[in-house]
Amino acid sequence: MEELKQAAEVGKVIIIPVGSVEEHGPHLPLCTDSLQPEYVALEVAKKTDSLLASPLKYGVCSTTRIFPGTISISFHSLYRITREVVEEFIRNGFKRFLILSGHADEEQMVALRLAAEHVLWRRREESQKRKIRIMVCTDYDFAYALRGKYFDEKDGHGGTIETSRVMAIRPDLIKGKGKKNFQKIPKFEIVVNPRDFLPEGIIGDPTIASAEKGRFINDYIIKEMVKLIDELKS
Amino acid sequence: MEELKQAAEVGKVIIIPVGSVEEHGPHLPLCTDSLQPEYVALEVAKKTDSLLASPLKYGVCSTTRIFPGTISISFHSLYRITREVVEEFIRNGFKRFLILSGHADEEQMVALRLAAEHVLWRRREESQKRKIRIMVCTDYDFAYALRGKYFDEKDGHGGTIETSRVMAIRPDLIKGKGKKNFQKIPKFEIVVNPRDFLPEGIIGDPTIASAEKGRFINDYIIKEMVKLIDELKS
Amino acid sequence: MEELKQAAEVGKVIIIPVGSVEEHGPHLPLCTDSLQPEYVALEVAKKTDSLLASPLKYGVCSTTRIFPGTISISFHSLYRITREVVEEFIRNGFKRFLILSGHADEEQMVALRLAAEHVLWRRREESQKRKIRIMVCTDYDFAYALRGKYFDEKDGHGGTIETSRVMAIRPDLIKGKGKKNFQKIPKFEIVVNPRDFLPEGIIGDPTIASAEKGRFINDYIIKEMVKLIDELKS
Amino acid sequence: MEELKQAAEVGKVIIIPVGSVEEHGPHLPLCTDSLQPEYVALEVAKKTDSLLASPLKYGVCSTTRIFPGTISISFHSLYRITREVVEEFIRNGFKRFLILSGHADEEQMVALRLAAEHVLWRRREESQKRKIRIMVCTDYDFAYALRGKYFDEKDGHGGTIETSRVMAIRPDLIKGKGKKNFQKIPKFEIVVNPRDFLPEGIIGDPTIASAEKGRFINDYIIKEMVKLIDELKS
Amino acid sequence: MEELKQAAEVGKVIIIPVGSVEEHGPHLPLCTDSLQPEYVALEVAKKTDSLLASPLKYGVCSTTRIFPGTISISFHSLYRITREVVEEFIRNGFKRFLILSGHADEEQMVALRLAAEHVLWRRREESQKRKIRIMVCTDYDFAYALRGKYFDEKDGHGGTIETSRVMAIRPDLIKGKGKKNFQKIPKFEIVVNPRDFLPEGIIGDPTIASAEKGRFINDYIIKEMVKLIDELKS
Amino acid sequence: MEELKQAAEVGKVIIIPVGSVEEHGPHLPLCTDSLQPEYVALEVAKKTDSLLASPLKYGVCSTTRIFPGTISISFHSLYRITREVVEEFIRNGFKRFLILSGHADEEQMVALRLAAEHVLWRRREESQKRKIRIMVCTDYDFAYALRGKYFDEKDGHGGTIETSRVMAIRPDLIKGKGKKNFQKIPKFEIVVNPRDFLPEGIIGDPTIASAEKGRFINDYIIKEMVKLIDELKS
Repeated sequence: MEELKQAAEVGKVIIIPVGSVEEHGPHLPLCTDSLQPEYVALEVAKKTDSLLASPLKYGVCSTTRIFPGTISISFHSLYRITREVVEEFIRNGFKRFLILSGHADEEQMVALRLAAEHVLWRRREESQKRKIRIMVCTDYDFAYALRGKYFDEKDGHGGTIETSRVMAIRPDLIKGKGKKNFQKIPKFEIVVNPRDFLPEGIIGDPTIASAEKGRFINDYIIKEMVKLIDELKS
Repeated sequence: MEELKQAAEVGKVIIIPVGSVEEHGPHLPLCTDSLQPEYVALEVAKKTDSLLASPLKYGVCSTTRIFPGTISISFHSLYRITREVVEEFIRNGFKRFLILSGHADEEQMVALRLAAEHVLWRRREESQKRKIRIMVCTDYDFAYALRGKYFDEKDGHGGTIETSRVMAIRPDLIKGKGKKNFQKIPKFEIVVNPRDFLPEGIIGDPTIASAEKGRFINDYIIKEMVKLIDELKS
Repeated sequence: MEELKQAAEVGKVIIIPVGSVEEHGPHLPLCTDSLQPEYVALEVAKKTDSLLASPLKYGVCSTTRIFPGTISISFHSLYRITREVVEEFIRNGFKRFLILSGHADEEQMVALRLAAEHVLWRRREESQKRKIRIMVCTDYDFAYALRGKYFDEKDGHGGTIETSRVMAIRPDLIKGKGKKNFQKIPKFEIVVNPRDFLPEGIIGDPTIASAEKGRFINDYIIKEMVKLIDELKS
Repeated sequence: MEELKQAAEVGKVIIIPVGSVEEHGPHLPLCTDSLQPEYVALEVAKKTDSLLASPLKYGVCSTTRIFPGTISISFHSLYRITREVVEEFIRNGFKRFLILSGHADEEQMVALRLAAEHVLWRRREESQKRKIRIMVCTDYDFAYALRGKYFDEKDGHGGTIETSRVMAIRPDLIKGKGKKNFQKIPKFEIVVNPRDFLPEGIIGDPTIASAEKGRFINDYIIKEMVKLIDELKS
Repeated sequence: MEELKQAAEVGKVIIIPVGSVEEHGPHLPLCTDSLQPEYVALEVAKKTDSLLASPLKYGVCSTTRIFPGTISISFHSLYRITREVVEEFIRNGFKRFLILSGHADEEQMVALRLAAEHVLWRRREESQKRKIRIMVCTDYDFAYALRGKYFDEKDGHGGTIETSRVMAIRPDLIKGKGKKNFQKIPKFEIVVNPRDFLPEGIIGDPTIASAEKGRFINDYIIKEMVKLIDELKS
Repeated sequence: MEELKQAAEVGKVIIIPVGSVEEHGPHLPLCTDSLQPEYVALEVAKKTDSLLASPLKYGVCSTTRIFPGTISISFHSLYRITREVVEEFIRNGFKRFLILSGHADEEQMVALRLAAEHVLWRRREESQKRKIRIMVCTDYDFAYALRGKYFDEKDGHGGTIETSRVMAIRPDLIKGKGKKNFQKIPKFEIVVNPRDFLPEGIIGDPTIASAEKGRFINDYIIKEMVKLIDELKS
């Protein structure tokens, strides 16, 4: 209680990890998208003396909802709860926020961005004066920057990068290897049942994943996010 | 009334143009994002014997909301009205839809996609059986594919492409030339007042726009969209 | 962008046309209720130097919803979008509004009035001080004043007046003549399927409509609305 | 409990009285609009062997909200509660409803009609089959039919008719006589503070009211409503 | 109108009775939970010179919803209407409130408490300054305090206490005696159909109820509530 | 993914831990109410071969909201997200649920119960047939049963029991000892600022807490909850 009050007074950054409960192929756990940002956020919080908020564990998973294991909440619920949590931290005196989602789906990201934007817009005079600032990102904003150079351009959901990262963080939760799949989901059509495109719920090649690759990716993400926090604090 | 009933029976595609009322620099009209998809939709409807629905004229314009002239509706309102309109067409017997937005902002696009997705998910057995299909795109999904090759990689809101297109469609609505601007909006930070990055509400170089370029771009978009409709009809 | 800013500064009136997509018998187009207020609003805007906002094309059509071609949005959606649009114009500095609906249904009108009222009530001190004023009407508030004297007392939806008006505005969209019908819808009972009362979706006699009558009606409406705008500006 | 079950089985009509808490000039009680429909509903229920539901005591009073004593609920709340109550009665087996409002304001009436309409539309196949029917009216649909012949054409809120009716029902609640006022509220402008038009919250002439007139009006309304119920039962 | 204004000025307490329409066994009327608080509130208002607001007659009755005669509104509707009513009284100048529910169900009570809390929280500076205070209770907070000493510890819904109270208030509405039942509803499981536990919708022993017992209980409740009001006024 | 499918097929119980971020005096961590049910749920899941769902970490904390460190979400958000999560598990084939809240506040508990109830009521035929069952409890339903016998009757929020439990689960998160406080919060008045009653946010005596007591309590709760699960599985 007291610590939090002091943290607000010295202007610490709040990092809010957001995940999802979603299938990631037969080889990865359902909480894959929570494991990753929670791990990254913890490391970044340590390095930057930031505060780690309790994570939001459920996300919006429209594309994979048809697969067993996906527990998708509505866009509106994720938006609301995120907005309420940020507003409560502001009420407690905090001013700088990094919302970090492990689930990179555009609906999830827009729900988070919309929440942040409405917090700022509604109090736009106060925000300007108190210099309230919010960043929203997914660790895949950075991880996917490594595609092309180190990983396949089309690597995606449950592929080399994601599998490697989980191997580095929680190897005990991996079951088998998964199968590689490089089919593409249609870009414009709204697909309710995507099994024709991702029969096992995978895009990319998990068979060539390794813990070492995972550590490399995680370190890169952590380094990039430390920069973001530094900018937020400036 | 009768025509609509018959159109539903023969399985015509419904094209729903969605725009916005938004500043596009001092040289372009506020309805720039409505002009473009309405023009494209009309041409595509003629070529593919599709039906043009009444357009939705207001959109979600968070980024530019601070500029004079932007009339932004909420994410939730755009979502709701889109969903209701599509559901009413389905109730009238239609099965194939193309929702075409002239405003390419991610909040706008997710509102439209979410509406389409909820329509399909809610009736997923019926959708499967009746083969109800919905595509959602912006004409900038195609226009921006021409960047790099024909236009600057960073051309954007109110830039060469957009200005050229309006010059081709409604040259009478252009006022002056605008100024070029290639600053970037921060990627992760939620920016409520973006004037530091786009002082005149422009990204790209409108000064080198021409009606000829606009016709070239519009024709390309129309050609690509005809393909989409053909796929929808198949 | 600049023009809008100046228009707000000199206190121009904003006219917002609201329509519907609704059957009007086999002879009239589905957009009948949009055509009319958009035409009237344009003429009035020219005569009074007012600003024409982008129209809302979809309305609340409960009574005729069962007929093919009616695309009805919910009361709540029309209320919300109208309120948001007016509030955005106020944020842009505008103070005087005329909301003009071509669809005269009481649910539509109450949705529009409720939106206007909530805008004013919520900011009632500011409204008083800045003299924000909003009028809401349908062109049928005036057109039906001509019944009894020039037209049948019971003329209504798709009848002599409405058909004549469309003949004057867009004769190319008329198909055939329609059939006359003077049955009445029950006053107190909520009727979900009104086919017993309006078998072809018409009340009144479209067979005696003419473009000349339409011009007479339209001119009368325009004249009356110019008076309203003059009062709004005073 | 058992009686209600049997009442549903024999198809009794449910009458739901809806009122408001609203100023009616200094001479009439705030519950004027509840007193009247509750009295009428009781008499009609006795004559037609119908069931009287517990009344809804609060209504939507936009026009008079600025006067002391008006406790106005939102359109949405009245809509929701009415819809829920009717749906619960249908779940209990009832099929015929008369919703009777003492407050004749168009927002109140549309909230009630919209509720009824949505109940029927949502279950439109079931409604057709089970012959579920709902009527919505205000006792002023009948009372105002006596204007012109027996009362002033412009008599309204808190005037001769309303004052007379309360004198006949609850003479003990009358305080003084009120003042007559025949100014009109603007037809199109949304008026948040109507004191300029109804300084004491009265339209009409309460000074010539009498209990005898009230009985005459009440009897007329009861007689007309018995006809409605008879039609509902047929 | 004038009286209300003065009552607000001298700081009178508003008592808002809230009931329900709910089965209470075959022997008690459906409005049992409205009768009781309305009677108590009237007596308390007389003794403490408080103002009695129009009652809310419908409540949230999840547990007994499956029985014939229960007309349950949603949690959200009760919350909303209560909040709106209290806010309107505050707008009218009132500062002290007692919300008294005859229906003691926890969902009902939390809906009422939540409404009160949101009213106070939203205006927490104003509340502090104007000393706005709200109490929420059910008359069963007091009546059940007599269990153990005067009545069976497990007496409940439609049992000795409730039946006695109605016998004292409206003996004409009692039909027969009911049957005693002392089964318990499971504490943790959400039970949608509780007929296995309360076959006749009764908990307790109504057969030993008497009007005399009812008067004793009612007097006790009234005495306790007068104390609450005295504290509210202090 | 596959495991979850099989778990659903063999009818495993899903345990959903729900916590809060809330002050608990200066000596306990903000996540006190999450720690406890997550610990208990894990132990119970192991003993009963149940599945542990990802926890909900934020709760409704009205009473203590004014203290630093409380991050309270709205009743509606907790209700919605709980309902959506349970519905998604049902869609995945699960039928038995235990929702376990560490935060025992009545608003929190009613939000959870309401969510469960609406899930069951909406599909009440399906629930009956598929035997879908949901239990909702807080570990304080059991912990407080030990008051009177082993602990002070008035021990509460942040007191002996709660402090002991956290000492047994995460001794590293304890800071100091807290102060004892046995004042009571008013029962009926809605208190927005409860500092007068709990100056340090504590009810009870944390100074006599011990890890040993905590283990005793935790074991008791786990034993009782295993019984609940056994009943759920029967």
